[in-house]
Amino acid sequence: MLFSKTFAKTRKEAPKDEISKNAELLIRGGFINKEMAGVYAYLPLGLRVLGNIERVVREEMDAIGGQEILMTTLQNPEIWKKTGRWNDAVVDNWFKTQLKTGGDVGIANTHEEPITELLTHFVSSYKDLPLALYQFQTKFRNELRAKSGILRTREFLMKDLYSFSRSENEFKEFYEKCADAYMKIFKRIGIGEKTYRTIAGGGSFTAGLTHEFQTLSDAGEDIIYVDEKRRLAINKEAYTDENCAAFKLKKEDLIERKSIEVGNIFPLGSVYAQKIGLFFTDEDGKKMPVFMGSYGIGLPRLMGTVVEVLSDEKGIVWPHEITPYQFHILHVPSTNDRVKEAALRLYEDIIKAGFQVLYDDRDLSAGVKFADADLIGAPFILIVSEKTLQNGLIAEIKFRKEGAVKPIPALFAVSKWSYPFKI
Amino acid sequence: MLFSKTFAKTRKEAPKDEISKNAELLIRGGFINKEMAGVYAYLPLGLRVLGNIERVVREEMDAIGGQEILMTTLQNPEIWKKTGRWNDAVVDNWFKTQLKTGGDVGIANTHEEPITELLTHFVSSYKDLPLALYQFQTKFRNELRAKSGILRTREFLMKDLYSFSRSENEFKEFYEKCADAYMKIFKRIGIGEKTYRTIAGGGSFTAGLTHEFQTLSDAGEDIIYVDEKRRLAINKEAYTDENCAAFKLKKEDLIERKSIEVGNIFPLGSVYAQKIGLFFTDEDGKKMPVFMGSYGIGLPRLMGTVVEVLSDEKGIVWPHEITPYQFHILHVPSTNDRVKEAALRLYEDIIKAGFQVLYDDRDLSAGVKFADADLIGAPFILIVSEKTLQNGLIAEIKFRKEGAVKPIPALFAVSKWSYPFKI
Repeated sequence: MLFSKTFAKTRKEAPKDEISKNAELLIRGGFINKEMAGVYAYLPLGLRVLGNIERVVREEMDAIGGQEILMTTLQNPEIWKKTGRWNDAVVDNWFKTQLKTGGDVGIANTHEEPITELLTHFVSSYKDLPLALYQFQTKFRNELRAKSGILRTREFLMKDLYSFSRSENEFKEFYEKCADAYMKIFKRIGIGEKTYRTIAGGGSFTAGLTHEFQTLSDAGEDIIYVDEKRRLAINKEAYTDENCAAFKLKKEDLIERKSIEVGNIFPLGSVYAQKIGLFFTDEDGKKMPVFMGSYGIGLPRLMGTVVEVLSDEKGIVWPHEITPYQFHILHVPSTNDRVKEAALRLYEDIIKAGFQVLYDDRDLSAGVKFADADLIGAPFILIVSEKTLQNGLIAEIKFRKEGAVKPIPALFAVSKWSYPFKI
Repeated sequence: MLFSKTFAKTRKEAPKDEISKNAELLIRGGFINKEMAGVYAYLPLGLRVLGNIERVVREEMDAIGGQEILMTTLQNPEIWKKTGRWNDAVVDNWFKTQLKTGGDVGIANTHEEPITELLTHFVSSYKDLPLALYQFQTKFRNELRAKSGILRTREFLMKDLYSFSRSENEFKEFYEKCADAYMKIFKRIGIGEKTYRTIAGGGSFTAGLTHEFQTLSDAGEDIIYVDEKRRLAINKEAYTDENCAAFKLKKEDLIERKSIEVGNIFPLGSVYAQKIGLFFTDEDGKKMPVFMGSYGIGLPRLMGTVVEVLSDEKGIVWPHEITPYQFHILHVPSTNDRVKEAALRLYEDIIKAGFQVLYDDRDLSAGVKFADADLIGAPFILIVSEKTLQNGLIAEIKFRKEGAVKPIPALFAVSKWSYPFKI
């Protein structure tokens, strides 16, 4: 993409009421726009990052046998009344509205009830199980607090997966597989080292403890106690003597940290199946309720967490797998037309080689363009100038994270480049 | 995909209250599930088709310079009050809800207002224009009638594009480019021949006439008058002597037909820009409002139209570009294990060759599997049987649309196949 053609340029300032670092950097960088408190639109750069995160999550969900579907936002109250979760006293963040033809309708905040109902059409025998279904779907949560940028919003794209097993053991096997897949996702998007599987308190309908994935960050709303050696942690609400003993966590080894919840996994037992009527006939001809689990990841929250955790004083630093562009070219203004021509040629060569590249072709000072490149955060910044031409270089490369600048000699042809770029 | 692993099997019957052909076939084929009247979930097969349609539309929108973004469902009433469209008497299909922190919020049915507001942050000079921005976003319409399956729903994925020009002439140029792109889309998804650009009455805020794209079908809710020779048509509400004269349509050449509106393109003038405050400074330093257009395509409606128009008495017939699977393999049950082995090998070879393939590996009668293959509608059905083994064939191929069956000799190796398949 040519920078001069994109409509969403960088901005000098974020809105004054925006107090979170992630939203401030993302708004200034031209990734998102604040529509209302807790409601953000995605501009081309932001949508590219979101799409990359979606791709990583999809690959890992497919790898554990997930089948992708797309459920609906509008929700029939009757199904939710069966579990009692239509009640605002039980679920406190519903948006509800009315049909013109009469009757209430819900705006989905999660999908346990409708997916259980859906499967009653398809599951009847033990041969139909186990199953894991997932979707990428916009969730709506009527939040009282929405002050953390894209970490906690009223509307966000979520990957929610639901597992359906014949027994608790079969469920546990999948549960661990999904937990492993989650760690792979966090690693691939660049927050693996700072992310811990934590022991958390149960949710509604959750028997006993559940697990969360928490990324260490001062922007987090949660408190966890971390055993760095064992790479295990426990949430504040579950931090009891009993639980510590059960998981062999010694209080003297634990460090209190602030953190962001980047994923959760819930054993649901067979409560939903029993209330909604999802049964199967087992090998002995006995009618049994299906054993379920649910597994959620909010995509904008991952994106916001990456910004919180990996940015520096100059701007965002995107990891290789989710960067909106792999390369960011800029030319240093010159009276010599050949500088701009060389930059454009490099841009075309990189596209031809199959990489994603943004070329800042604007006739602005080098200082402005360097600052924008640092703010936008592509990992590899390529600089074409009078100097690189004179020295017979393809470009100079600045490694965004490390700050180091190196020459790329003419010999190192673009067609031979690999990604991540190394020289 | 192995058929035995997919959860969403074919169903004998659609719900009794489902009277539309498109939804009936799509529910029976395992593509969608009816959640409520006018609200459908997408199962793996249906989501594949929807994703393919999205890909085609995206390619054509990118080709005319569209930049993709993603706006929000939750809408701030203040922006809509500026144009008067918050009023239910003006826009009669709003879903509205309330924030827990107080105040009304809209559930978006379209995005002219927020995108105009968004661009006030980025457009100030003639140098920032022209622009075309688009998104794939779920729209919500509080429909009184929702009886046409996925042709008219309360919730659906829409591609909406908005153009921003410096003058009416610049707008018209883009308008024609987008109209051409729309015809390319309809052609690629298989309904080009039956689709006409029509002259339609204006909408709210539309000065004069607009255009729609209408596909001939008895399932349609619209009436158009078609000039087959000129491949032009006029909507019933615009069918006046004056309009016919203006477009040189002779009433004696026009045939009355029922049709489905598959796309629309609207000149918006500068009404939105003026009311919301989207101005630019022209080359003479004069402050001017931006000239806008909007361009919509509902993706499920395209999918439903394809089903209405191209299916036969046996089931759906998917066009090559949007079929959920390019090939559908089945084996004829046999006591000879080599039949199933050969089918599985063929399945693996086709995957290796980079095609999308569904293998019905179930141990069911050939009749049941043939019927399911016809219902699901992949264009190329590959049959492996005792007979094909004995004759040294790779398989027999049944062309779903034409019904013809041909042998594929061993010489015609999968690695040499192209798509669409020809022999």
